[in-house]
Amino acid sequence: MATTIGVFDSGFGGLTVLRELLPLVADAHYVYLGDTARLPYGSKSRETIARYALSSARFLREQGAELLVVACNTASALALDEVREAMPIPVVGVIQPGAEAAAAAFAEEGAAGGTGGEVLVLATQATVESHAYARACAALGLKATEKACPLLVPLVEEGWIGELGEGPSQGDGAKCAVTAEVLRIYLGEALWEAPRSRTLLLGCTHYPLLRGAIERTLGELGHPLRVIDSAQATARSVARLLGGSGPSTAAGTRKADATCEFFATDSVAKFERLGSRFLGRAVEGVRLVDLGG
Amino acid sequence: MATTIGVFDSGFGGLTVLRELLPLVADAHYVYLGDTARLPYGSKSRETIARYALSSARFLREQGAELLVVACNTASALALDEVREAMPIPVVGVIQPGAEAAAAAFAEEGAAGGTGGEVLVLATQATVESHAYARACAALGLKATEKACPLLVPLVEEGWIGELGEGPSQGDGAKCAVTAEVLRIYLGEALWEAPRSRTLLLGCTHYPLLRGAIERTLGELGHPLRVIDSAQATARSVARLLGGSGPSTAAGTRKADATCEFFATDSVAKFERLGSRFLGRAVEGVRLVDLGG
Repeated sequence: MATTIGVFDSGFGGLTVLRELLPLVADAHYVYLGDTARLPYGSKSRETIARYALSSARFLREQGAELLVVACNTASALALDEVREAMPIPVVGVIQPGAEAAAAAFAEEGAAGGTGGEVLVLATQATVESHAYARACAALGLKATEKACPLLVPLVEEGWIGELGEGPSQGDGAKCAVTAEVLRIYLGEALWEAPRSRTLLLGCTHYPLLRGAIERTLGELGHPLRVIDSAQATARSVARLLGGSGPSTAAGTRKADATCEFFATDSVAKFERLGSRFLGRAVEGVRLVDLGG
Repeated sequence: MATTIGVFDSGFGGLTVLRELLPLVADAHYVYLGDTARLPYGSKSRETIARYALSSARFLREQGAELLVVACNTASALALDEVREAMPIPVVGVIQPGAEAAAAAFAEEGAAGGTGGEVLVLATQATVESHAYARACAALGLKATEKACPLLVPLVEEGWIGELGEGPSQGDGAKCAVTAEVLRIYLGEALWEAPRSRTLLLGCTHYPLLRGAIERTLGELGHPLRVIDSAQATARSVARLLGGSGPSTAAGTRKADATCEFFATDSVAKFERLGSRFLGRAVEGVRLVDLGG
């Protein structure tokens, strides 16, 4: 019997976490909820976000979830404890796995220890203001510099990105050039502030779609930082929690193909259109659900 | 006794309408409400937006408003009738004045009449999807092509704009170059779709901050359309409604300096910081108000 894993986000971004989970924990049934009617969470108060996150968590539990992934940086930053207290199942957020992956990278390079590693975190304004990554990194002996990049989410949602990880390039050259220039500006400012950074943490579930462009820009700027993706780190945490399923990269190790159900609290058509870009494959059969105001 | 005029928007954008009102209807007391806790209205349902707009309108009425300006395109598009029915005072939206100004421009040029003028409307995704500008223009014999420009609001809120109408340029050259390139892409696509357009209507209260950049880009593209600003058109409508106060451009015609009070439903500090950019002068003494969920 496949484990049922519930994944929720305020919108589409959490689909990048699901995208990493599908090959890594393939023998599972996934139920994804995008709380699109109430996005963005970022501008809401802590109490409101906790209320939203709890109603999403309860809905996924009703759908049979045995493990819950809070695939939303804002909800992970502000409401993870409340969700954990309320749910009788394991709950995984995106921030702690990202910080742990950064610490593991430093340990691997032998760069942590006494001096402490420096991490650059790119995130939304709301996540930066919560300082959740700085706290999680500090607890692991790392110094984090958090850089808000408000234009990256709308650029990704407009599809002005040069690649999708798979398949041919989307969008034309001029649009990708805009995104590249925005990245040069943000990364240039961030590296000017924290020039000793060795690792870059993608602290927003939209940013994995820009990973290639970010790596190219870091190279151009002469700072080829190691890029760590919270979505990928979160998927690895879930795999470990489920007993070391481990990556099923070799065809022989894949036990079964994962199955998915999708729910959204607003426009199903928009969810299917935008969602496919984040999941890297067709998002179909999305059902509308009303979780109230 | 100065008239009290209530102005509301889901955020800061409506301050561009207030900015036009201040010199035009100078002998008034203004009460501005930014419903920042519940923004953006664009992704909400019609019922929710009407509920939000009514609570904002009632709050401003309680503050003594004798005339109400719905300085928000989404609320004007989806909830103006509900607000008018509920309020015992005149209510002015931003869409009808914009469309009327476009029609007046065509009439002035002798270009309307049998053939019908073509107008290009730049707006947010939500305003475009409502087709409120297309309907208002059609009722005046104009054909409107509506172009959604989702990156312009975040670019303005990031301050990546080359001018503020007053004072020295803000932001550095690379940031303004990004905005210019985004405008070239959006306007290029819009003019390819509607090459016969003679007038460009700014259908979002954020866009007046980009007016200079938009006019430069239109010139570069070889389509120097006449730009009409809904904020300006709305201020003129209010002036006419109040009995032809008319523009008090000559120093002698100004009766009194307008006074302003500001309320916001979320972060007062952010409102003061961002608001000043939209109003073109300091926004101070903002008070927090709770209008509920």
